[in-house]
Amino acid sequence: MRALVKQSAGPGMVVKDVPVPACGLNDVLIKVHFAGVCGTDLHIWEWDAWASGRLKPPLIIGHEFAGEIVELGSDAASAGLLAVGDRVTAEGHIVCGHCLPCRTGDFHVCRRTSIIGVDRDGAFAEFIVMPASNVMRLEGISTETGAIMDPIGNAVHTVLEGQVVAGAAVLVVGCGPIGCFAVGIARAAGASLVVASDLNPTRRAIAERMGAHVVLDPTGDDVPARLHELTGGDGIDLVCEMSGHPSGHAQAFQAARPGGRINMLGTPSRTTEVDFARDVIFKGLTVYGVTGRRMYQTWQVMSRFLRAGQFDPAPVVTHRFPLERIADAIGVIKDGSAGKVILEIGA
Amino acid sequence: MRALVKQSAGPGMVVKDVPVPACGLNDVLIKVHFAGVCGTDLHIWEWDAWASGRLKPPLIIGHEFAGEIVELGSDAASAGLLAVGDRVTAEGHIVCGHCLPCRTGDFHVCRRTSIIGVDRDGAFAEFIVMPASNVMRLEGISTETGAIMDPIGNAVHTVLEGQVVAGAAVLVVGCGPIGCFAVGIARAAGASLVVASDLNPTRRAIAERMGAHVVLDPTGDDVPARLHELTGGDGIDLVCEMSGHPSGHAQAFQAARPGGRINMLGTPSRTTEVDFARDVIFKGLTVYGVTGRRMYQTWQVMSRFLRAGQFDPAPVVTHRFPLERIADAIGVIKDGSAGKVILEIGA
Amino acid sequence: MRALVKQSAGPGMVVKDVPVPACGLNDVLIKVHFAGVCGTDLHIWEWDAWASGRLKPPLIIGHEFAGEIVELGSDAASAGLLAVGDRVTAEGHIVCGHCLPCRTGDFHVCRRTSIIGVDRDGAFAEFIVMPASNVMRLEGISTETGAIMDPIGNAVHTVLEGQVVAGAAVLVVGCGPIGCFAVGIARAAGASLVVASDLNPTRRAIAERMGAHVVLDPTGDDVPARLHELTGGDGIDLVCEMSGHPSGHAQAFQAARPGGRINMLGTPSRTTEVDFARDVIFKGLTVYGVTGRRMYQTWQVMSRFLRAGQFDPAPVVTHRFPLERIADAIGVIKDGSAGKVILEIGA
Amino acid sequence: MRALVKQSAGPGMVVKDVPVPACGLNDVLIKVHFAGVCGTDLHIWEWDAWASGRLKPPLIIGHEFAGEIVELGSDAASAGLLAVGDRVTAEGHIVCGHCLPCRTGDFHVCRRTSIIGVDRDGAFAEFIVMPASNVMRLEGISTETGAIMDPIGNAVHTVLEGQVVAGAAVLVVGCGPIGCFAVGIARAAGASLVVASDLNPTRRAIAERMGAHVVLDPTGDDVPARLHELTGGDGIDLVCEMSGHPSGHAQAFQAARPGGRINMLGTPSRTTEVDFARDVIFKGLTVYGVTGRRMYQTWQVMSRFLRAGQFDPAPVVTHRFPLERIADAIGVIKDGSAGKVILEIGA
Repeated sequence: MRALVKQSAGPGMVVKDVPVPACGLNDVLIKVHFAGVCGTDLHIWEWDAWASGRLKPPLIIGHEFAGEIVELGSDAASAGLLAVGDRVTAEGHIVCGHCLPCRTGDFHVCRRTSIIGVDRDGAFAEFIVMPASNVMRLEGISTETGAIMDPIGNAVHTVLEGQVVAGAAVLVVGCGPIGCFAVGIARAAGASLVVASDLNPTRRAIAERMGAHVVLDPTGDDVPARLHELTGGDGIDLVCEMSGHPSGHAQAFQAARPGGRINMLGTPSRTTEVDFARDVIFKGLTVYGVTGRRMYQTWQVMSRFLRAGQFDPAPVVTHRFPLERIADAIGVIKDGSAGKVILEIGA
Repeated sequence: MRALVKQSAGPGMVVKDVPVPACGLNDVLIKVHFAGVCGTDLHIWEWDAWASGRLKPPLIIGHEFAGEIVELGSDAASAGLLAVGDRVTAEGHIVCGHCLPCRTGDFHVCRRTSIIGVDRDGAFAEFIVMPASNVMRLEGISTETGAIMDPIGNAVHTVLEGQVVAGAAVLVVGCGPIGCFAVGIARAAGASLVVASDLNPTRRAIAERMGAHVVLDPTGDDVPARLHELTGGDGIDLVCEMSGHPSGHAQAFQAARPGGRINMLGTPSRTTEVDFARDVIFKGLTVYGVTGRRMYQTWQVMSRFLRAGQFDPAPVVTHRFPLERIADAIGVIKDGSAGKVILEIGA
Repeated sequence: MRALVKQSAGPGMVVKDVPVPACGLNDVLIKVHFAGVCGTDLHIWEWDAWASGRLKPPLIIGHEFAGEIVELGSDAASAGLLAVGDRVTAEGHIVCGHCLPCRTGDFHVCRRTSIIGVDRDGAFAEFIVMPASNVMRLEGISTETGAIMDPIGNAVHTVLEGQVVAGAAVLVVGCGPIGCFAVGIARAAGASLVVASDLNPTRRAIAERMGAHVVLDPTGDDVPARLHELTGGDGIDLVCEMSGHPSGHAQAFQAARPGGRINMLGTPSRTTEVDFARDVIFKGLTVYGVTGRRMYQTWQVMSRFLRAGQFDPAPVVTHRFPLERIADAIGVIKDGSAGKVILEIGA
Repeated sequence: MRALVKQSAGPGMVVKDVPVPACGLNDVLIKVHFAGVCGTDLHIWEWDAWASGRLKPPLIIGHEFAGEIVELGSDAASAGLLAVGDRVTAEGHIVCGHCLPCRTGDFHVCRRTSIIGVDRDGAFAEFIVMPASNVMRLEGISTETGAIMDPIGNAVHTVLEGQVVAGAAVLVVGCGPIGCFAVGIARAAGASLVVASDLNPTRRAIAERMGAHVVLDPTGDDVPARLHELTGGDGIDLVCEMSGHPSGHAQAFQAARPGGRINMLGTPSRTTEVDFARDVIFKGLTVYGVTGRRMYQTWQVMSRFLRAGQFDPAPVVTHRFPLERIADAIGVIKDGSAGKVILEIGA
C-alpha cells in the first residue's frame, strides 16, 4: 500500500509502498479515506527536539483519520459490534488499561500510551490496523468530518472540562484549527459570550464564521478593556488557552475572573513566568492541562453535536490535498494561511 | 478597651485604649478570649509592600479569634439563632453577596471582600463587632481551638478541594502551621499516605506529630526518589503547596502524578517559571488556588472533624502570649521556632 | 395600595386597599409592574389541603414579580449596589443563612425558608418589600420577563442539575409552563435531542414552539418505542419530570437509560409505587428532587441565557390580565387552556 | 477440576469434576484459593424468580474470589503487566466497552455485562479464566481478603458516591456483610458519625466492631428520635440503604436531611410506595442506585484503604468452609447467623 513514511532521523517524509499491516484477533483493518494534518505532523516533518526525542523511524505518520472497515480479527468479529463496511474513525491513543490513570478513568494520560503516527504506525496510508475498542462508527457524520474528530475532540475536551460553559463568558486565546473548533463547541454547549483572540486576521475570520461573538487582535485591541466592557466588569468564566505562547498565558491569567477557570491546550515550547499569588491564589482560579480526549466521554458529546447539526467544522477546513502532495499540506500549515488541512487518501 | 493598633504607616504596632465598637442591627458584639497570630500579621508588623499597599491605618489588627457574645443587634437578636453567652468564632471575610463570585457560591473570592484586621478593625482587642451571618457557635469545640479555625479552615479548603483525598497519596510541601494542619486534615479525611516536606526540623517534627506517615527534608532527602518508592511509582495524587517558594512549586509539579492535582495556598512573593507543557498539559494536571475558606462548607467539615475528635490541632500550638507581648509573638514566628502562636486576651 | 389578599381560611381571594409595607434597613421597596400567576396560587385560591395546612391569612398572595425600586433602607443604600429606579426581580425564598443547608450552599432547602405570598406578604400588590440580598437588577431583560424568572429558574434548576445536558437526549414529561421553559432551556444549554410529552395538545404545541424536536402524546403514541427509535436504543440521558403524576413517574423511570438521571420537579399529590430494583439500582440511576432555584447559580445562568437571546419565554406567555381580573387568570389556569399567565399591576 | 455446578433448573448445586477452562489470548488462568459466598449465590441455590429468569444451567457458580495466576494468554503475557505466580483478584463484570454507559465511564451498568457465576462460568472451582483487564494484583493485601473485594467494593461504591462522606453523618440501614463493610469504609473515609441499624443483634454487634458509633434496633429504638438527637437536629447527610426492604426505604427517606443523599444498594424483591413530594422534592434529595463497583475507581480506593490498614474486614468474616460443604455455607447465610462466609478452595 502507499504510505507516508518518516524514513530516518532528520527532516522530511517520503511516500512509498509498504506492506498492508496484519489484523490481530481484537483488531480491525480500516481502509483510510481521509486524514487530517496536525501541527504535530509539522513538528515531525521538521524533526524538532520533541520529534527527535520521541520517534523511532521508520514510521508511518498521521493520527487523524476516518475510513471503512475491510477486515475484522476473529474476536472483534465475534463481539458483533463492528462489521465490514462500517464507516469509522478511531481514538489514536492506545492505552494500557492497567495503570493508575487508566484505572481511575483518566485514560487520556495513560502512563503507557502508544499514539498512532508517533509511537506506532499511523494513518497517512491506504490502510491502518486499530484495536476494536478504539474504533467508533460514523452514524450520521460524514467520513471527511470523521477524519478530524481527533482535533475537534481536543476542543470538546478543552471547552467542557469543569462543566462551566452553559451561560458562560468564554475567551479562546489562539485561533488555529483547534481554537476555531473550540469557538463552535462553546456555542453549541450554551456559552453566552464567546470571544476569540489571535494575531492572524485569516484565523480571526474563521473564528467569526465558527460563531465568535467578538474577535480581538491582541496587537491592536486593548484586550483587557474590551473584555471588561463585554462582561460588564465580571471577567471571563472560562479561558481556553490554545496558543501555547507566554503572551497567551498572560492574556489568559489577566482575563480569568475570580473563581474562574483556564483550560490549557496550546503546547508551549518554553517556560512561562507565573505570578501565582496574583493570578491563581488570590483569584481562587483553576488551571487544567488538556491532553487528548477523555476516553470516551469527549467522543460521545462530539458525535451528538455533529449528528444534531449543533456544530459544523466546515469553515475551518481550508485545504484538501492528495497524499502525494504532503509537502504542500505542510507548507500551508507552516505559513499560517491554513485552517484545517485534509489529505484525501482512499475516498 | 485594650487593642493592638497599627497606628500609622511603618513598622510595628501599639497596644492602646480605644472605644468599644458599636453593635449594628445585624451585628453581634463579641468579647475576645483568644486570638491567633498569622503570618499576615507579621507582614503588617513589618509593613512590607503588600501591607503598605493595602492597609489604611489606624487599624486594629488580627483576624483569627474566638470568644463570647455579649450583645446582639435587634435584627440579629430577633432571628433567634445566636444568644448572649454563646461561645463563638467567626469567618473574617465580610462579603458583598451581590457580585458574580458571591452569586455563584464562591464567596471566598468576593470582589468586595472586607477582611477584619486588614480592611476593617480586627480581633486583637477586648471586643469585636461581626455581622451575625459570619458568626458560628462553638459546640463541642474549645474556645482556644475556635480561635484558630481560620487557619485550620485554610487547611481544610486546601485538602478537600477537588474531592480526591479519600485513599489518596498526599504531599504537603511546607510545614508551617497551615501545612501541619493540612497533614492532620488529610489523615482525618481518609488519605492513605501523607508525606510532609520542610527544611526546618522543628516543623517536620510537628508534621510527624500531626500524623504524617513520612517527613522529608528537601535539602537532605532525594524527594522524587522517595516519593517514587513510597507510591510504588504511581506518584502523588494531591499536592498541598503551602510554601509559596519556587522550590516548593518545583517539588509540587515534579511530584504530582498524571491526572493529579495541586492545591496551592502558600503565597509567593515573586514569580515562578513554569513548564506548562511538561508539568501541566502532558500530565492532565489540575492546579487550584486556595484563598480563605469556602463559606461555609469548609466550616461545616472542620467543625465536625474537631467535634468528633478526628482532628486535634494541639501539637501545632507552640506558644501563648498575653496581648501586651505581641512583639514576642511576632519574634517567635519570625525566627521559625514557632508553630501556631495564640494571644490570650480576655479568657 | 391595591393588593390581592387571602382574607381568611377558605376558597377565593379579594382585591382590597392595604398599607404600603415599611422598608427595613436592609430592605428595598419595589413598585410591582408585572407578576406571574403560578399553580401554587391556584392551590391557595382553592384552599386545598396543602394551602390550609401552611398559610396563615390574612396574607397578600403572589411570589413571581418584577418592578422598580422606589426606596432603599439605609444599609441597603449605603452598600451602593442597588438604586432607586433600578428595574429588578427577586428570589422569593427568604432564607436564614445559618442552618446546615444554608451553610453548605443549599439555600433553596433552608430549614427556615419564608416564601413571599405563602409565608409572608407577597407580590400581587402595588408594592412589595424585599431583603436587598434577594433582589437582582434586570440588565438587558424586559420587566415582563423579569416577572417570570421564578418559574424559568425552576426549569433552569431542573435542566442543569447534574451537569449532563450538553449533547444529551432529554425527555420533558409534562408541558405546563415550567415544562415548556425546560424545553427551551435544554436547547439553550446544548441538548442534542429534546422530546416533550403531554396529554394536552395546546401544551404540546407550546413545547414545539419552545424548541422540542419531537412532542409525544402518551395516550396516542407508544412513548417507549418512539424514545428507543429516537435515541438509537440508547435511552434518555436526562428526564425532567414536571407532571407530578404516577404515570409521569412511570414514563420517567422507563425512559431513563442505565447511568442516567431523573430531575423531578412536578409535585405529586399522592404516593407512587417504585420498583427500586429494576428502575434505580440495576440502572445505576440518579434521582434528584428540585425545589426552587439554586441561590444564586440558577439566576446567573438564566440571566445570561435571557440577555444573550439564547432563551425566549414568549411562546409560553398566553394570557395577561389586570390585578382585578384575578378570577379570570385562575380560570384559564384551571381549565388547562393557559401557558403562563401574567398580571399587569403597575406598569 | 472440582467445581460447584448448577446442573439444571431447580434448587441446589452439585460439586463435580469438570474440565479446566481454556485460556484465551487476552486471558489469564487463575488457581482459586478462596471464594466468598454472596446472597446472590443463595438466590441461585434456591432457584428463585430472578435466578430462573437469568441463569442458563449448567453453570459454575461464584463471583467473589482470589488466587494465583498459573497461565497467561500470549497477548496478556506480552503486555508484561501480569505474571505467573501473581496473587490476584478480579472484577467479575465483564463489559463490552462499546455501549453508551461504557463509553461514558459507567462500565458498571454496561448494557452487555456478563457476570461470572451468573452469565458465564464462575469462581467456585479450582480454576477460573478471566480477561486480563479485569485482573488486579494483591500487593499488600492477603489472598483471603482479596476474595471478598467484590462485596467490599460494593460498600466502597455506596459510601463514596456523591463525595459527601468526609465529616458526614452516615446512616447504614441493614447490617448484612456489605452494610458492615460500609460502616468501616465510612469510618476510613472520614465520616464523623456512623450509625448502623438492623433488627438482628448479631449483625449489630458486627457493625459495632466495624466502627459504628451507634447501633440501633428499629424494632426497639425510636430511630428518628435518636438520629435527631445524634445529629443535633440536622439529620443524616448520607444514608446507605443496604436492606432492600420497604421499611428500610422508609427509614432512609425519613432520616435523610434536606439537601442530603441516599445511596441505595439493597435489592428489593418488591415495590415501595414513595412520597416523592415530601421525601424527595421538598427535601432537594438525591437518590442513587448502586450496582457493582465503579471500574476501577472503586478498586483503587479500596486497595489503598486495605493496604494502609485503614479498613479491616476481619470482624465481618464469621465462617470458613471447604468447597464440599457449600450446603453448610448456604445454611448459615440463610439463617442469619453469618457475616461473610468464605470457601477455602485451593489455598
